[in-house]
Amino acid sequence: MRKLVIIPMLFTVFITKAQDSTQDSIFIKRIATNILSSNDAYDNLWHLTKKIGNRLAGSPTMVKAENWGLDVFKRYQPDNAYLQACMVPHWVRGGKDVSTVSFTEKGKTINYTLNVLALGNSQGSGPKGVKAPVLTVKSFDDLEAKKDQVKGRIVFFDIPFGDTLINPFESYRVYAGYRGAAPSRSAKYGAVGVLLRSMSHSTDNFPHTGATRYNDSFPKIPAVAVGLKDVAKMSKWAAEGKQLMALIRTNGKMLPDTIGHNVIAELKGTEFPDEYITVGGHLDSWDVGEGAHDDGAGVVQTIEILRAFKALGYQPKRTIRFVLFANEENGLKGGTKYAEEAQAKKEKHIFALESDAGGFTPRTIGISTNDTGWAKVESWKKLFAQYNISSWDRSGGGADIGPLNRLLKTPLAGYEPDSQRYFDFHHTDNDRFEMVNIRELKLGAINMAALIYLVDKYGLE
Amino acid sequence: MRKLVIIPMLFTVFITKAQDSTQDSIFIKRIATNILSSNDAYDNLWHLTKKIGNRLAGSPTMVKAENWGLDVFKRYQPDNAYLQACMVPHWVRGGKDVSTVSFTEKGKTINYTLNVLALGNSQGSGPKGVKAPVLTVKSFDDLEAKKDQVKGRIVFFDIPFGDTLINPFESYRVYAGYRGAAPSRSAKYGAVGVLLRSMSHSTDNFPHTGATRYNDSFPKIPAVAVGLKDVAKMSKWAAEGKQLMALIRTNGKMLPDTIGHNVIAELKGTEFPDEYITVGGHLDSWDVGEGAHDDGAGVVQTIEILRAFKALGYQPKRTIRFVLFANEENGLKGGTKYAEEAQAKKEKHIFALESDAGGFTPRTIGISTNDTGWAKVESWKKLFAQYNISSWDRSGGGADIGPLNRLLKTPLAGYEPDSQRYFDFHHTDNDRFEMVNIRELKLGAINMAALIYLVDKYGLE
Repeated sequence: MRKLVIIPMLFTVFITKAQDSTQDSIFIKRIATNILSSNDAYDNLWHLTKKIGNRLAGSPTMVKAENWGLDVFKRYQPDNAYLQACMVPHWVRGGKDVSTVSFTEKGKTINYTLNVLALGNSQGSGPKGVKAPVLTVKSFDDLEAKKDQVKGRIVFFDIPFGDTLINPFESYRVYAGYRGAAPSRSAKYGAVGVLLRSMSHSTDNFPHTGATRYNDSFPKIPAVAVGLKDVAKMSKWAAEGKQLMALIRTNGKMLPDTIGHNVIAELKGTEFPDEYITVGGHLDSWDVGEGAHDDGAGVVQTIEILRAFKALGYQPKRTIRFVLFANEENGLKGGTKYAEEAQAKKEKHIFALESDAGGFTPRTIGISTNDTGWAKVESWKKLFAQYNISSWDRSGGGADIGPLNRLLKTPLAGYEPDSQRYFDFHHTDNDRFEMVNIRELKLGAINMAALIYLVDKYGLE
Repeated sequence: MRKLVIIPMLFTVFITKAQDSTQDSIFIKRIATNILSSNDAYDNLWHLTKKIGNRLAGSPTMVKAENWGLDVFKRYQPDNAYLQACMVPHWVRGGKDVSTVSFTEKGKTINYTLNVLALGNSQGSGPKGVKAPVLTVKSFDDLEAKKDQVKGRIVFFDIPFGDTLINPFESYRVYAGYRGAAPSRSAKYGAVGVLLRSMSHSTDNFPHTGATRYNDSFPKIPAVAVGLKDVAKMSKWAAEGKQLMALIRTNGKMLPDTIGHNVIAELKGTEFPDEYITVGGHLDSWDVGEGAHDDGAGVVQTIEILRAFKALGYQPKRTIRFVLFANEENGLKGGTKYAEEAQAKKEKHIFALESDAGGFTPRTIGISTNDTGWAKVESWKKLFAQYNISSWDRSGGGADIGPLNRLLKTPLAGYEPDSQRYFDFHHTDNDRFEMVNIRELKLGAINMAALIYLVDKYGLE
C-alpha cells in the first residue's frame, strides 16, 4: 500500500506547484494589465518633474517633493504613510558655473567658453575664479607620472568612458572614481583647479555633474565637468600642441546640514506583519534638469506598485514599505537613516528592491541572495520573460538599500533596465520628463511589482 | 586497440569545437570593438537623414539616396557595387493634408483643426475637400453593425492599439489591417472619407501615415491618420454626444510607375562564391520626417557590416550581398525584383537577414529555419548574450527578404531590437536622426555582423 500512498502525495505536491505557478502567472498578468491601462505613473512623473522640478537635498523644491510624495501615497490609501526625518548635507551651486579656455593662434588670442557644471559638493573658486595653464592627463597613472608639472596648473582629466564596454554601468564603475578623487589627487600636487571629461557616451554637449569627495588633507580646489563636444575641442587643441589657459569660476558651498525626509507608505502584512519588504527609489536629484530618469522613474514606479496592489485588492502577507529616499545623490543619509531606524526597532527586513537606473525598457534584475533565495528566483524567471526581463544577475542592490544589508543582512535586488541611454541624461540639464517613454516606465513597474508579489507570497531566504 | 583510436578522435573533435567557439567569440569581440570604436554608422545616418532627408520611392530625394548609397558602399571597397533597377509605384502627397472638425456647443460653432496625414497611396479629395457628419466606429465589427448609417458620412475609426499587449509589433499585426482596409470597407457602404486613429502608443500628437490598399470595386475615398491627442479630443466629444462635422482635404495621387533601384554591394566568397548570403534594410521611407529609425538604421547597419568586415580583413567563404532595398513602404518592388532576379539567374541563396524595426537596443533575433539550422542557432546563442540578444524566436524575416523565401525557400532572419519606442516614431514627421541613439544603433550592427559571420563560416541548413 505504501506506493499508493506516496504517489497521490507526490501528485498533490506537483498539482499545488503547478497551480501556484499558474495563479502567479495570472496575478502578474493582472498587475501588468492594470499598470498598462493606467497613466498614473506617467502623470505622477509629469507632476514631479514639471511642477516641482529638480530637488537636491536641502533645497526648497525637495521640501515640495516630500509633501507631494506624501500626498500621492495617501491618495492610494495605504495603511500608513509618514515622513521619516534625517539630517542631510546641504550643498548649493550658488550661481552659474563658468569656464573658458584660451590659446594663441597665429598671434591672435582665441577664447572659447566651455559648457560646464561644477561637481556636486565642490567648493567654489570665489568670484574672481582661478586662471592657470592647462595640464592634460589621461589617467591617474598619467597624473602621477606628471606630478612635477601639476603645481599651479588646472588639470584637465581627458579620460575615456569605456566606449567598447557593452554595459555602460561597467564604464561608470571603472571611471566614476575620477569624479570622486580627481580634485584632491590633483590638489595634492599643487593644482588650482580641475576640468573633468563628463561621464557619458552622449553625442551632445551637456555637462554631467555628480558628487566629488575632497580629501581634507589637501586644498579644496574648484572642479567642473565639461560637455563632450567641448572635450573633443580641447583634446584636438592639446593634440595640436596648443598651450591652453583655463579659467574656472564656480560658486559652490556646503552649508550646515539640514533636515530632510524619507517619504514612506506601508501596506500591513496579514500573516507576517513583522516581516518587512522594502521597495523604493530616491526622491532627491541633482540641481539641474528635472531628475526624470534619475530617479523620478524609480519614485513613480515605487508609488505605482502601491497603486496597482490597492487597485487589485491585493492584501500582502508581509508588511510592504514603499520608500522615497531623501538623499541618494550627495550623502546617502536617507538610506542610512532608514536602515538605522530598522535596526534600532529590531525590525526583520527580509528583502529590499531599488529602482535607480532610469525608466528604460526592462532588461535585468540583479539579486544578492543565498542559495535558497536563488533557487526560488530560478523558479520564478519564466514568469518575467514575457515582460522583458531576460537576464538575472546573482548580484544586485542599490545605494539606498545598501545599509539594510550592511546592518541587517537583508537580501537586496536592483531593477536594471536597459542602460545604453542612461548616461546620456544622468546628472544633466537634459534629464527631463520628455526623455522617459511611458511604456518603458510602466514595464519597469510591472516587473518590480511582480517580484515584490512573489517575495511577499513565498519569502526569499 | 580500437578504444585507443576512438578516444583521441573524440578528443580532437571536442578540442576543435571548443577552439572554434573560442575563435568565434574572439572574432565577434573584434567586430564589436571595431564597430563601437567607429562613428561611421552614425555619421552615415546623419548624412542620409539630414543631407538627403525622407525619400519615398519615385521621389527626387530617393534618387539622391541611391547615389549616396552606392558612393558609401564604394568607399568601403567591396568586390562589386551596383544598382539594380526595378519599376516602383510613384505616389505623391501633393500638398498639405487638412482636416477639421466642428460641432455646436451652447449655440456656438466650435472649429478644431486636427493634426493629420493622408494615408500613403490614398487618393486626394480634390481641392474642395469632402465635408460630412462623422460616424464613429470602434472596429470593423462595429462598422458592419452600423453599415446603414455609413452612407454620406466620414467614418472615424477610433480603434485601440493594444495598450496591454507587451510587444508593440503584436499590436501592429492586430491593428494595421485597419489602415489597409478601412477606406474601402467604409466606401463599400457609401462613406465619403475616413479618419483613422494613428497606429501608435505615443503621448504626442504626430499623425502616423502608412500604406492603405484600395479595393477597386469601391470608390477611392480620402483617408487620413489622426494624431493621438486629437483622437482623444474627438473621443471625448463623441462620448459627450456631440455631432461632429468633419472636413478632409487631401491631394494625394498615384502617378505612373517609375524606375527605382536596389543598391547592392558584394564581398565575393573565397570557398563557395556561388552561395549567397543577403543582409539589408530599405533605403526608401515615407515622405515625412527623415526616415531615421524606418529604415535609415537598417541601411547604415547594413553598410556598417561591410565596413567592419573590410576593416578587419575578413574574407568570407560565401558571397555576401549588402542590399539597400528600393521600395519597402508602398509596394515592395525592390525586394520582389531582387528575388526574381536571383531566381532567374538560378542563384543559391542560403540565408537572408533584414533590419527594419528601428535602431533600438538589441533584444531578439527571429529566424525561420529548419531543425538543422535551429540546432546551429542554439549552439550560437551564447555568443550573442553579452551583446544583449537575450531571446531568439524560431520565426523571423522581413518584408524585403520575404520574396527570397517564397521563390527560393531561403531561410530568413529578422533583427528585432527592443520595440517599445518604435511606434512613437514610425511613419511620422518625428522619425528623425535625433531619435536614434548611437550605441543602440551600433549594437544592432554588431549582432547582425556576428550572425552573418557565423552563417558564412558554418552555413545554416
